[in-house]
Amino acid sequence: MDHETFRRYGHELIDWVADYMRNVETYPVLSRVSPGEIRDRVPPSPPEEGETMEAVIEDFRRIILPGITHWNHPRFFAYFPANHSGPSILAELLSAALGINAMLWQTSPAATELEERVMDWLRQMLGLPGEFRGVIQDTASTATLCALICARERSSGFRINEKGFMGGVMDGALRIYTSGEAHSSVEKDARIAGFGSQNVVKVDVDAAFAMVPEDLEKRILADRNSGLIPCCVVATVGTTSSTALDPLRPIGEIARRYGLWLHVDAALAGSAAILPEKRWILDGIELVDSFVFNPHKWLFTNFDCSAFFVRDPEALTRTLSILPEYLKTDLDRQVTNFRDWGIQLGRRFRALKLWFVIRSYGVEGLRTKLRDHLRWAQEFKEWVEKDPDFEILAPVPLNTVCFRFNPWGEGASAEDLERLNKAVLDEVNRSGRIFITHTKLKGDFSLRLCVGQTQTQRHHVREAWEALCETRTVKKHRKG
Amino acid sequence: MDHETFRRYGHELIDWVADYMRNVETYPVLSRVSPGEIRDRVPPSPPEEGETMEAVIEDFRRIILPGITHWNHPRFFAYFPANHSGPSILAELLSAALGINAMLWQTSPAATELEERVMDWLRQMLGLPGEFRGVIQDTASTATLCALICARERSSGFRINEKGFMGGVMDGALRIYTSGEAHSSVEKDARIAGFGSQNVVKVDVDAAFAMVPEDLEKRILADRNSGLIPCCVVATVGTTSSTALDPLRPIGEIARRYGLWLHVDAALAGSAAILPEKRWILDGIELVDSFVFNPHKWLFTNFDCSAFFVRDPEALTRTLSILPEYLKTDLDRQVTNFRDWGIQLGRRFRALKLWFVIRSYGVEGLRTKLRDHLRWAQEFKEWVEKDPDFEILAPVPLNTVCFRFNPWGEGASAEDLERLNKAVLDEVNRSGRIFITHTKLKGDFSLRLCVGQTQTQRHHVREAWEALCETRTVKKHRKG
Repeated sequence: MDHETFRRYGHELIDWVADYMRNVETYPVLSRVSPGEIRDRVPPSPPEEGETMEAVIEDFRRIILPGITHWNHPRFFAYFPANHSGPSILAELLSAALGINAMLWQTSPAATELEERVMDWLRQMLGLPGEFRGVIQDTASTATLCALICARERSSGFRINEKGFMGGVMDGALRIYTSGEAHSSVEKDARIAGFGSQNVVKVDVDAAFAMVPEDLEKRILADRNSGLIPCCVVATVGTTSSTALDPLRPIGEIARRYGLWLHVDAALAGSAAILPEKRWILDGIELVDSFVFNPHKWLFTNFDCSAFFVRDPEALTRTLSILPEYLKTDLDRQVTNFRDWGIQLGRRFRALKLWFVIRSYGVEGLRTKLRDHLRWAQEFKEWVEKDPDFEILAPVPLNTVCFRFNPWGEGASAEDLERLNKAVLDEVNRSGRIFITHTKLKGDFSLRLCVGQTQTQRHHVREAWEALCETRTVKKHRKG
Repeated sequence: MDHETFRRYGHELIDWVADYMRNVETYPVLSRVSPGEIRDRVPPSPPEEGETMEAVIEDFRRIILPGITHWNHPRFFAYFPANHSGPSILAELLSAALGINAMLWQTSPAATELEERVMDWLRQMLGLPGEFRGVIQDTASTATLCALICARERSSGFRINEKGFMGGVMDGALRIYTSGEAHSSVEKDARIAGFGSQNVVKVDVDAAFAMVPEDLEKRILADRNSGLIPCCVVATVGTTSSTALDPLRPIGEIARRYGLWLHVDAALAGSAAILPEKRWILDGIELVDSFVFNPHKWLFTNFDCSAFFVRDPEALTRTLSILPEYLKTDLDRQVTNFRDWGIQLGRRFRALKLWFVIRSYGVEGLRTKLRDHLRWAQEFKEWVEKDPDFEILAPVPLNTVCFRFNPWGEGASAEDLERLNKAVLDEVNRSGRIFITHTKLKGDFSLRLCVGQTQTQRHHVREAWEALCETRTVKKHRKG
């Protein structure tokens, strides 16, 4: 493709994107295709000869678009969002065009130094301790994996890296503590890093689904008495099911007392700490060793962009650094080489989109959007509470509401309620009007609505409530 | 940013990108800034109020661009390329605009099904076995980590995931075999996965820097006799230093004989297998368990895009699957959920750019470009060979030439040659005309030139040679 052809189709696609963002509400939120439908429309073999960009773009509209679930739809209330914004998309365009690899300082000094700067901006915005240093990772899964490995290496005097778990370095198994409400990535990462699922201790949660510090301490002591080696605590600020908030201060005091690494997964909720009135969710952060939150979830920055902070960068780089001859440069002692700060060697230029977003909105502009989302989530919660056919299943400290349809009151069985609410979920999602997802809380099937999309306004949240209320008329009398 | 503002700046930036790609040769390849220079030009704190997009774009040009090392410059010959193309950049724009997460089928069926299709296109293009199934990973580092964990789990009957390395599952340490020329990510991944560096056995290489199968077998047997447990072989097709080609067939036969998982890292060189005349580099591929190559290196597809293939997808998903309630869908038994095929849960829509690139070029169009690169690398090699002041340090089976300036002949010391060639490297790179990097081969400092950029033409390779020849006049008489 020559440069003028690129220019021509670039302009065409910018118009398409602008129109798409303006009209995204006209699409069903959740794609309606059936399994295999898209695959069957793509030829089974690649073309020998090149095709025109017209044909490719036409197929993008005809084949791909119907199979898209519209994550930036203002009525997308599922999972946690992966939100974005105009400035972020423009920065992704520039990043794709530059096509650099930000693995070393010299492979693009601006990528490294801008990343250092914008990560420090985020540190200030969230009120993280001054000594925290940040690096952009792809996802919180990866950041938490880095944290677990750091914890493992600190516990073993950096000898598991060298000798492996089987090298006779440890006298007992290393143990990780997290709550039963923690994200599945904690257990997945514990498997990857060789701890094993069995050594992930699920600490009790309270009525608000937050970790109980007393139970944490009890389990640490019991493990020590059994010859096991407490290594790491992963606390969650904003659990995936219900945005429950583990109390960092008492957890941090326990972690310090017993010499455990404390990692905090605040993937969604970290963004809320840019609000002075929500800063309390990170109370005790000065006791934390590592911290991750995802600007790609709730700070209008395209996925992937996960902000990982560590108190002691040397613990991270000592754990992850490996330096073959072909990556050495003369400046290695003077500069930051982010290759040593993560799992992957290659790294995209992701600082650019953060810079575009923070400058374009300003911190106050970001705060305004988050306050809207928080307020509308509270309103939705109030609508649920006031309706005798619905009930709230968890506190709503942030932007996510867990609730269920229960026209039968206290006598209803969990099985009946699950069947009923699955039907509600299926019906509202198939309508295309909204997309919400579910979870389980203490075994109870729960609907779950998260307000976090860039374009969402109050009336979209109201429409979600109305869509849910409409299904009720159909479902109400179908018990058993 | 409203949609019309997005449209306006989108058009402005498309023009900027088209101009940039046309004029990229006017920039020095390697950025000339000093450490701290970019950082000092970015304010230490974020703005409270939003700024105009004019101001942000202006700062992009003024502050960021001088700190960019231009990876898509036609005279970028460093490392391995991270090349891209117009169709790929356009697809990245669309992917950023859609902003979906391809973790589950339902979170965008088109993303999952297009990925299945284009990965099968790649499988056919490279002549991989029919049973191979593919998934897009970010980098070969991550793909190789997945392979090592699969090998670990197969060796332990999937019990290390459950009980951990310390769970008494294994009687001895698990061992990984790779050549001394393998990429640093193999050892890094072995650390992450808990094997430890000490259990990465460096098999001897021959004069062409390829793994010696007889030495592999000898080491496996010696380990078995010592109570160690051979687990995995990582063969490299196209080593990072010199694109040496480990012979897959004899290695595969040994791996089969002793029941080891065989993973192949063909990060750069895999793309060459789309050429019928180069298909032999994968001879023996039917004996392989997993295989990775990077379309983002040499197939004109933006970083990141790493193509990972496995013979037995169930071994992969059984190793990496973890299914919390909030990720369950009704269709889980009927569809592919790529969340179970990698480390991360969240996934960008990367299949789109592969689809745009393969359709836009056609397989034959891609072959033409690769043949050009291969031919020009051979020409460069011939220029080096014919010049008495230079010498070739490794075979050139593909697009990468290892060589050094040696005006002194056989009597020169390795130290003198290293000093001299470091000075040459520094001078040509500082000139801004070309960017090449270095490696060490059997302890000898080697310059290294890789022909793989999308816009590179023969005259650019010739200019690289001329730039190198010019430094000779300065350096020739500075011995000792």
